[in-house]
Amino acid sequence: MIFGAIVAGGIGSRMGVSGIPKQFMNLGDKPIIIHTLEKFILCDKINYIYIGVHKDWTVYMDDLLDKYKIDKERIFIVKGGDDRNKTIMNIINGIEKKFGESDSHVIVTHDAVRPFVTLRIIQDNIDMAVSYGACDTAAPAIDTIVESNDGKIISSIPDRRKLYQGQTPQSFKMKKLKNLYENISESEKSILTDACKIFLLKNEPVYLVKGENSNIKITTIEDYKIAQAMVKGEKIEPNFN
Amino acid sequence: MIFGAIVAGGIGSRMGVSGIPKQFMNLGDKPIIIHTLEKFILCDKINYIYIGVHKDWTVYMDDLLDKYKIDKERIFIVKGGDDRNKTIMNIINGIEKKFGESDSHVIVTHDAVRPFVTLRIIQDNIDMAVSYGACDTAAPAIDTIVESNDGKIISSIPDRRKLYQGQTPQSFKMKKLKNLYENISESEKSILTDACKIFLLKNEPVYLVKGENSNIKITTIEDYKIAQAMVKGEKIEPNFN
Repeated sequence: MIFGAIVAGGIGSRMGVSGIPKQFMNLGDKPIIIHTLEKFILCDKINYIYIGVHKDWTVYMDDLLDKYKIDKERIFIVKGGDDRNKTIMNIINGIEKKFGESDSHVIVTHDAVRPFVTLRIIQDNIDMAVSYGACDTAAPAIDTIVESNDGKIISSIPDRRKLYQGQTPQSFKMKKLKNLYENISESEKSILTDACKIFLLKNEPVYLVKGENSNIKITTIEDYKIAQAMVKGEKIEPNFN
Repeated sequence: MIFGAIVAGGIGSRMGVSGIPKQFMNLGDKPIIIHTLEKFILCDKINYIYIGVHKDWTVYMDDLLDKYKIDKERIFIVKGGDDRNKTIMNIINGIEKKFGESDSHVIVTHDAVRPFVTLRIIQDNIDMAVSYGACDTAAPAIDTIVESNDGKIISSIPDRRKLYQGQTPQSFKMKKLKNLYENISESEKSILTDACKIFLLKNEPVYLVKGENSNIKITTIEDYKIAQAMVKGEKIEPNFN
């Protein structure tokens, strides 16, 4: 079976807006997380969609599903963990309690604050994870990236043609992800901000799925402005004189 | 002496707007390149400012200086070269013809399409280049960066805390930059998109100057939209319900 896992465990402080996690802010006529959820609902290869939200916001999330008339049959809300990977593990535990363990379960993990993910990206994720066990969505890097070990002098400027900006979804054979995660140390876990790194740490291959520059993560107020312009389909014509 | 070098040699095709290079598009009430130039004019540590523009646009550039009533006493326009580094070398040759060679000349090279550079960034560049010979402006990386040698499988996910997004200015002791550049092979020159890499290739240290996320490069139509919002000082209030 294929499971969507929308990760929204955070209570978002970077936006500089108090009171409400950023995934619940409106974009156009509905909250960011509802836009994101609708992309997953569109994909009929996905059997069930889990949403991991901070424990203080599970009731609010459920109310949103009602308010925006989302069919709840395929959707489960679970409590988030202390970090992103722990939220994913909570979701996996929820799935396994309900649907049992299976080598063929695949989980498509996605940031709630990336509402512009496309159906093509989700489908490619499913195909790659089914075929190879793990994949990450990434788009060719635009900026020159500079590496510095001490923050003072440049150590290297890696060849940009080999660099990609990591996005989500990140998709995995669920049981494998869980087993690998359980076999890394607590200190390693505490610094792992990225689920794909769990595979890399254990020398397991992670395949690339082609991302899109439009698949932005809404983290700052600037991102939010861009996202608003994108939702409006705003056309700002360049002017010359 | 300290020289500003505003690099605008391109005729910009990525914007999808034909007819006019992007540095000449208006932001608010004046062209992008005029915004950029004004930042350099503000810095009184800079003795002269050179602008490298494509040969077809030098007259247009000169007309812009008149139109926007820029005092031309400190400003020279020179023809750009085939790539960014060649434009910089044309500027250096222009400077040396007029002011002679000197070990103490410093050049502050900057993208014409980064109009949001700050006076603080320019001044830090000057101080660093005077003290250490070479520096690059960079801001901590926001995105997770993924490395792939073959474009299919992830080779590594470098520690984000060591990664920076390269910006400009990039500033150098002029004579040293020129000497290093003259001592690299033609094939190396052809793949060098970044002036700092000239120093790295020759194992010369390049120091970091703290950039700002607002110091964006206007390359795509999306960048242009963001820049327009920034110039307007547009306040888009988040809305929740």
